[in-house]
Amino acid sequence: MPQNAEPLVLGIDLGGTKILSAVVSAPGKILSQDYCPTPAQDYPVLVQCMLKSAHRALKQAGIGANRLAAVGIGAAGLSDPEKGILFTSPHLPQCCDVPLRDDIAKGLGAKTFITNDASAAALGEFYFGAGRGAHNFIYITISTGIGGGIIIADRLYTGSSGTAGELGHMTIADDGPPCRCGNKGCWEALASGSALSREARQRIKEGAKTSILDHAGGDIDKVTGETVQQAAEQGDALAEELIARTGYYFGIGLANLINIFNPELIVIGGGLANMGDRLLKPAFRVAEERSFRQICQKVRFARAELGVNSGVLGAAAYALQQG
Amino acid sequence: MPQNAEPLVLGIDLGGTKILSAVVSAPGKILSQDYCPTPAQDYPVLVQCMLKSAHRALKQAGIGANRLAAVGIGAAGLSDPEKGILFTSPHLPQCCDVPLRDDIAKGLGAKTFITNDASAAALGEFYFGAGRGAHNFIYITISTGIGGGIIIADRLYTGSSGTAGELGHMTIADDGPPCRCGNKGCWEALASGSALSREARQRIKEGAKTSILDHAGGDIDKVTGETVQQAAEQGDALAEELIARTGYYFGIGLANLINIFNPELIVIGGGLANMGDRLLKPAFRVAEERSFRQICQKVRFARAELGVNSGVLGAAAYALQQG
Repeated sequence: MPQNAEPLVLGIDLGGTKILSAVVSAPGKILSQDYCPTPAQDYPVLVQCMLKSAHRALKQAGIGANRLAAVGIGAAGLSDPEKGILFTSPHLPQCCDVPLRDDIAKGLGAKTFITNDASAAALGEFYFGAGRGAHNFIYITISTGIGGGIIIADRLYTGSSGTAGELGHMTIADDGPPCRCGNKGCWEALASGSALSREARQRIKEGAKTSILDHAGGDIDKVTGETVQQAAEQGDALAEELIARTGYYFGIGLANLINIFNPELIVIGGGLANMGDRLLKPAFRVAEERSFRQICQKVRFARAELGVNSGVLGAAAYALQQG
Repeated sequence: MPQNAEPLVLGIDLGGTKILSAVVSAPGKILSQDYCPTPAQDYPVLVQCMLKSAHRALKQAGIGANRLAAVGIGAAGLSDPEKGILFTSPHLPQCCDVPLRDDIAKGLGAKTFITNDASAAALGEFYFGAGRGAHNFIYITISTGIGGGIIIADRLYTGSSGTAGELGHMTIADDGPPCRCGNKGCWEALASGSALSREARQRIKEGAKTSILDHAGGDIDKVTGETVQQAAEQGDALAEELIARTGYYFGIGLANLINIFNPELIVIGGGLANMGDRLLKPAFRVAEERSFRQICQKVRFARAELGVNSGVLGAAAYALQQG
């Protein structure tokens, strides 16, 4: 390794549908990256997939793993950063109490750290994106589920055992629909992409007049948040209603976070944020109605700036910070 | 003021029903205290009452106001600690954008600081009570309403403008009963003493068979959390059901805080905590059911140790810390 070389870090964003690996320099520059789908097979296959993706990213950057100062994993689930165990993940059913950090460390021969993917994304936005300059802010990703990361006093808040920030699993409707986490009426069960597609399928089955099904090629199982959005863009009344309804629930969770955290900033990322005003306008209205005026008026809302890279950049920053 | 004398601080706990003033030494010893009811009259009367109570506490301690290192106010409402303004309080309707800190400072001729009463109580428990030794914990007071205070990394977390910790006003049932804050379905609107008495009155009006009314002297307007508790202690089935129901809702809020904060400790204070197992057993069961097992099993629950003094001790500690 050359003397005085800038530290390079490998960030791995492990999601329920994709794995993203990137070689990142300390100032947050992505030197190379690799995408691959998350395998549905068992845990050893997942580890092999992650390692292969990591090696492709390293090769593309023209470096060996021995050049890495550290590796950071942001995983879609609950993990113990001290022991390096991924406890559980509604999105990665093959991961239950698995030593993911050490398996990756062994495979790459580099010091490795693990945190939650949304916490990593919060850190990414804090250092390199929409959160720059903010001291206390909440990052929320709204896509298939809802994840969150909390920055307090310029640091990622991870709680007493590294699992803080499960914002998507706060109950906002005590008798609401079941959530993948086992609870019911979670924010995620009412305001996420999967909540939106569940409602759309339900209404279609009930015979609602809508073009949503056409956008899914007539296959009700292919109705997703995206197909609902496509229908809404073409003026479909049900699609618009369903997105506004998702916005209503999204706003309730925002109001809770405003009242609890009095944040200066809430950064919103994730695929559903691309729905823009159709989703966010009702959400912000509800957030304003349901939180204290004096707290809400101090909050600035911003869209995440790093897109799909927030997690991988944040995982890299997390590893550098810990290493 | 004698050389090298221990700093003395005046703490004032301003609640919706009572004002408590105390002269406190730096290690948290209460030298004197004074109670008086909170006047229902307008703001100037309230300030005069607070000053009179403060002077009685000073007299009882045998010192003049010039001996005070600082004064700390914990007020039941939203305040701006920088400007010293009490913005609003569902419990103190006469207080709307009032310069309470400066009015008390002027009246006593001492440097004065203001924070929320539940935040002050959290600080009191952190320094002198059940929170000693904990780094990240949540304090919750359950009485007429629900208040909260957040200790993160050994410090009171007050948010970006001093108003964090409005835990009682997180929505847990989006279509729930109206709350005094203007929102509906708040934790406070479902799990507090006033929620309990509202439900009891409602059920009595509907003709439920219960002895609760007897404990209120036959006057439905005198039905409170306490009268429900008295009836439950004598085996009244409706009273038991209503307290368990309050516990159910209390547990939902606890689960949310567990998932969000991953705290090592939750300290529970306030009058309703005295209901003990009848309220807390169902609450803890629901908290366990609705939060992630891996997070919940790390949480320790403790009853507040300082009783009515947590707020006044914490307000004093807050003033010392800021001053």
